Amino acid sequence: MYRVSSSDGDAPAFPGAQTTPPAPSEPRSAAGAGRMPTVTMIGGGQLARMTHQASIALGQCLRVLAAGPDEPAAQVSPDVIIGSHDDIADLRRAAQGAVALTFDHEGVPLHHLQTLEAEGISVLPPSAALRFAQDKQAMRVRLKQSGLPVPDFVELAGDLGLARGRLIEFGDRHGWAIVLKAVRGGYDGRGVWILDDRAAALAVFDAQFDAGIELLAEQKVPMRRELSAMIARSPFGQGGAWPVVETIQRNGQCAVVLAPAPDLGAELAVRAQEMALRLADELGVVGVMAMELFETTDGELLVNELAMRPHNSGHWTMDGAVTSQFEQHLRAVLDYPLGDTAPSAPLTVMANILGAPSAPQMSMDERLHHLMGRIPAAKVHLYGKGERVDRKIGHVNIVGAHGEQLAAVRERAERAAHWMSHAVWTDGWEGH
Amino acid sequence: MYRVSSSDGDAPAFPGAQTTPPAPSEPRSAAGAGRMPTVTMIGGGQLARMTHQASIALGQCLRVLAAGPDEPAAQVSPDVIIGSHDDIADLRRAAQGAVALTFDHEGVPLHHLQTLEAEGISVLPPSAALRFAQDKQAMRVRLKQSGLPVPDFVELAGDLGLARGRLIEFGDRHGWAIVLKAVRGGYDGRGVWILDDRAAALAVFDAQFDAGIELLAEQKVPMRRELSAMIARSPFGQGGAWPVVETIQRNGQCAVVLAPAPDLGAELAVRAQEMALRLADELGVVGVMAMELFETTDGELLVNELAMRPHNSGHWTMDGAVTSQFEQHLRAVLDYPLGDTAPSAPLTVMANILGAPSAPQMSMDERLHHLMGRIPAAKVHLYGKGERVDRKIGHVNIVGAHGEQLAAVRERAERAAHWMSHAVWTDGWEGH
Repeated sequence: MYRVSSSDGDAPAFPGAQTTPPAPSEPRSAAGAGRMPTVTMIGGGQLARMTHQASIALGQCLRVLAAGPDEPAAQVSPDVIIGSHDDIADLRRAAQGAVALTFDHEGVPLHHLQTLEAEGISVLPPSAALRFAQDKQAMRVRLKQSGLPVPDFVELAGDLGLARGRLIEFGDRHGWAIVLKAVRGGYDGRGVWILDDRAAALAVFDAQFDAGIELLAEQKVPMRRELSAMIARSPFGQGGAWPVVETIQRNGQCAVVLAPAPDLGAELAVRAQEMALRLADELGVVGVMAMELFETTDGELLVNELAMRPHNSGHWTMDGAVTSQFEQHLRAVLDYPLGDTAPSAPLTVMANILGAPSAPQMSMDERLHHLMGRIPAAKVHLYGKGERVDRKIGHVNIVGAHGEQLAAVRERAERAAHWMSHAVWTDGWEGH
Repeated sequence: MYRVSSSDGDAPAFPGAQTTPPAPSEPRSAAGAGRMPTVTMIGGGQLARMTHQASIALGQCLRVLAAGPDEPAAQVSPDVIIGSHDDIADLRRAAQGAVALTFDHEGVPLHHLQTLEAEGISVLPPSAALRFAQDKQAMRVRLKQSGLPVPDFVELAGDLGLARGRLIEFGDRHGWAIVLKAVRGGYDGRGVWILDDRAAALAVFDAQFDAGIELLAEQKVPMRRELSAMIARSPFGQGGAWPVVETIQRNGQCAVVLAPAPDLGAELAVRAQEMALRLADELGVVGVMAMELFETTDGELLVNELAMRPHNSGHWTMDGAVTSQFEQHLRAVLDYPLGDTAPSAPLTVMANILGAPSAPQMSMDERLHHLMGRIPAAKVHLYGKGERVDRKIGHVNIVGAHGEQLAAVRERAERAAHWMSHAVWTDGWEGH
């Protein structure tokens, strides 16, 4: 007689069986040998939320430092430290027992990170790299030093008169086709002013100067489109690059991502990936990094911005690549070997779900219901955020089938995201 | 001048800007209009853990009733009710404020579910369906009534002498090639005795009878292999079927899943899907359901077991199908339209990570590290469980590339899982 049996200690007993299964062994540690390292992410936004989701598969639970229990990541992780990313004591609490501290946003004061590093806490990416993602002026200077192409720019810090003079000289040189940018803290179009005349530019400069906001001026380059090169780097020095994507901006923030960027020559794609990988290596970046690029009308690449964290231009990887940016960020931060960055489909389109200007007639729950009915293959990712106009509250990925045209996939993605934002179908369909 | 700006209320202010962006509107409810319905899952095991992971994308947070804070799902969800699935008060607490109660296992007493239903709580699948997954005897009778093919079986409940007589008659008829099964509570090979002689069968029967364990006897069918037809059904009546898979058992529990089942004719595959969909419809199942099947040596299908919850034979869908079984279960339970069940790759192989008989030399963290180094495309899912022999502590999915042979994909999946279990490479590689 053969008694088929596992000996899982959870299983109900079958007393009296003739052949007794081996007694369950004890777990190898109190917490179970399966207990994995804890990573802390500073910030409880959607990037932390989706990193927690990825951490579950790796046997982990992401710890988040969140400002409140309703933040996107705090809603879904049990390991939440409520506190401020500006408070060194809160940062220390969040770091306790974690193998590394990493970031959902660029807002943590650099001197706090340096303090933590001096205390032996593993800050990843390290402050020496992260400062270039926090400070657009320092970033541009550093990129130039590394020989990476950037739009012409000028620093506008320091004495008002001198800075104003530099702005005027710079504006005149570029026919006032310039962009003013806050050196710190801008995102999703905030802290960016695209200008085309002298009076307007000087007015913005004066107003921001009065408010204590430090600006830089940048040449407005004639561009074909924007691209993003998303890569990862581990402390071991391993690098991995996803296909370069095209990002489509509306009102200054990312609206749609086409992965891979259509009709991008292999030479340009590889150059973009190499630029990002090389810079990450030079700066000692750990984790994922997005290098946002302009493709100019004459086919050159210029670096626009850097983000040293999971990035909107990498959300497509959740459904369109073997390894998502969130899993990859954890792998890098833990110095695990990086995952395969190959796309899992010929093309994927990501469209952001943005808060509508006025309340849709339907709850989010109902909207999701109808979307699922109309587009059963839409991959929806909701962030648990309140709806406010133009706020990123979720995104939709549509993975293209083999042989499918980009235009069709993009239309489906944008229709899905617009529906989720507005409860209106872009093609006027009323069947819901 | 054009000021590019979103008006996300989270954004830092840029005071003094010439063009003021619209004032952020208030979130539409205190909790945010994005707040989605709560589903409660009874049981804190890996199925609940992975359902929580799926719930995050849908803007939700799964509530789990767990026996303790170290259970796999309790480690990763903040909404945990500690209690027992046997306790009606705990079940009521877990249901409070949730739109539906669903299950990680079949262990909840049926009369408790009936009580909850009488109190107006939405139990999904309903007790009227779930009883057939809890009671193998009732299930077989019901399947026969529905005209579904099952191996010959006999009830062994009631009076000892009569039941023993029925067993002897049944065993003689089948040449004692029979299987004894506990009517309730068996899983992963527990409560199953595969037999080939009269004395052994009677000994098992007598011992289990003495212990109060009710058994049934089933014909041991000459089979080619085991299959699983995984489907979902919503309360609206929508059905969806994933490709039928082949399941490979070791020591009575699922070890490997080949998706789709190789060399399964379309006629047989469709028949299996139809059997599962029709039964789910007849029983009013809500959620996902696995119908485990025998493919006999003469090419017929017989129903072996039913599970009305996410199931090991559906784990491949996490990386190999457009919609995972976990997302689908939530969609069904919430009466959302079902997601696309198409495979996202030509083939996917799932291999379970089982606890080893003796402690590997390496921690799970180190093993994961080495696996990632050797097989960067392996999709690992760890459950946060202590390691005990043959306990399911995780699984690995390998998604095949176009044109790749099943044998190669399967070898990679099994090698990866064996490594994670034992810290030994099946091909003797020692490079780690």
